[in-house]
Formats: sequence, structure tokens, C-alpha cells
Amino acid sequence: MQTRFFEDFHPGMTMRFGPRLVTREEIVGFAAEFDPQPMHLEEAAGQQSLLEGLGGSGWHTVCVTARMLAEGLFADTAAASMAGVDEIKWLAPLRSDSRLAVTLTVLDTRASDGRPDHGVVAMNCDVTDQFETLVMRLIGTLTVGRRAAAAGSAG
Amino acid sequence: MQTRFFEDFHPGMTMRFGPRLVTREEIVGFAAEFDPQPMHLEEAAGQQSLLEGLGGSGWHTVCVTARMLAEGLFADTAAASMAGVDEIKWLAPLRSDSRLAVTLTVLDTRASDGRPDHGVVAMNCDVTDQFETLVMRLIGTLTVGRRAAAAGSAG
Repeated sequence: MQTRFFEDFHPGMTMRFGPRLVTREEIVGFAAEFDPQPMHLEEAAGQQSLLEGLGGSGWHTVCVTARMLAEGLFADTAAASMAGVDEIKWLAPLRSDSRLAVTLTVLDTRASDGRPDHGVVAMNCDVTDQFETLVMRLIGTLTVGRRAAAAGSAG
Repeated sequence: MQTRFFEDFHPGMTMRFGPRLVTREEIVGFAAEFDPQPMHLEEAAGQQSLLEGLGGSGWHTVCVTARMLAEGLFADTAAASMAGVDEIKWLAPLRSDSRLAVTLTVLDTRASDGRPDHGVVAMNCDVTDQFETLVMRLIGTLTVGRRAAAAGSAG
């Protein structure tokens, strides 16, 4: 697949990544390692919490999103990486056997302060499950390599 | 240990959690699962990237921070959970064998919209390594149970 560069991102553009299955075993395993709170580990504790049932860590939703971006976007984009996060909202619990998908919308593109060979892409990622429930919204920025920089390094 | 409630949080208050060791094996393992980009997986690719060496995923720093908050704060705080993120900045690479620590500063406390038995705590988490390098800053909000709610449910 052709490499994507900064110049290929435009405000309003959308891309969709996933779906990716998240099993109960993965939810409990992630929580045990990174967010060992009872409502992420046991059904009964989840029922007694605001999640109203076993619900995955919000950070698990973030990490599955990161995986979809790494495979769906960064793998064929020049020198792409997350630069920062401006907002994360967890809007619905992450349930066992969810199939998460990411809809990325480009909000803005701009020059990078101090890195003339990169540009900055501001994006909104809406993460939905197989019922189109909006589970998480993440707004953040990527740095992406410019086409001119790649041409320069090849010449 | 005595349970902490919303009423125990005050602007300007600081707490410190960790340190927690992050090994090279953990860095590569996390990246393989959630952020499989070459600079998080191989030394040579890291050298050629903006990280200037093998550097962990920024999401790994986030997840290790989540673990320290879960163990150090949520475990003895009533009905506490992350409510949202207002900013994440990655300020230095996550290197092998870092010992990360979190300094949490309470920015603000306020009533929760629609949840009278909870309050909202805005916090800044500065995550540093063993050299006091600031690796990440995370600004976000927690929901925390109120003391009155606990007294009510016990009565």
C-alpha cells in the first residue's frame, strides 16, 4: 500500500479502523495488569458499581484504539506517532465480546513547531461497538512526516 | 487503612505513588500487544525515530500510571474512578528499566452533575522517572464517593 504523508490529511476527512473483538478474558487480563479495580475484574462487583455489570477499564478501550490506529493508520503513514491527547471521554462501559471500531475525523492540519519535516494532524476518534453505541471519544494530535522530507532523504 | 472520601480532597493537595519499575521486556510486550510500531519494539528502529533509541509506547506510560493510581489511590478511596482526561502530554521517552512515580496534585473539587452521592476531583498527574525527568503529564478528573452517601447506605 502507498505511504500516506502529512499532505494527504485534510480537515473533514474520515477513516474507519477495526472492528476488533475484546473478549471477557482480555478485559479481566488487562484490568489485572493495569487497572485492578473490582468492577473490571468480577461480575458481582461490576453490578454494584456505576458500570452496572462487568465493564472493562477505560484504559483498555484506549489501548485497543491505539492498536487499531497502529495497524490501520500508522503502519502505512510516514513517521506517524501520537503527539498528545486533548480529551478522552468514556461514554459507555466496555462489555465482554465487544467489537470495537474507530471512526477518525481529521479536525485540523498545521505546521509542526520546530520540526519542518513533520506536520501536526488534529483528530477526533469515535470508538463504537457492534451496536453503534459510542463507547469512547478521544481527541488528540498526531505528528506525520511530510512528503518533501521523504523525497529529500531519498535524494 | 481508613477510606478516603470526596470531602478529603482539597485543591493544592499532593500525593505521590510508586515507584514502579518498567523493564525492557514489559515495554516490548506492551507494544507488541497494543502499539506495534517499530520504535517501540526494536532498538535500531528506535534509533532512527524521534525517540532516539528504544522507547516505550506513550500508552504504556499511561497504563503504568493507571496501575499506580488504582493501587495507591482508588484502593482506599470510596467509589473512585477515572471520569475523563483533559490532557496528556508525553514529554520524554519511556526507557527500559525506568522507575516511574506519580505526583498527583488536586486542582479543583466540585459537585457531580446528576450524581449527588459523588463529587468530581480534577487532578494533575506528573509522571517522572528515577532521574526526576518528567516523562508524562496527565490532567483529568475522578469521580469519588461522598462521606454522606456512605453513612446513608450504612444506616
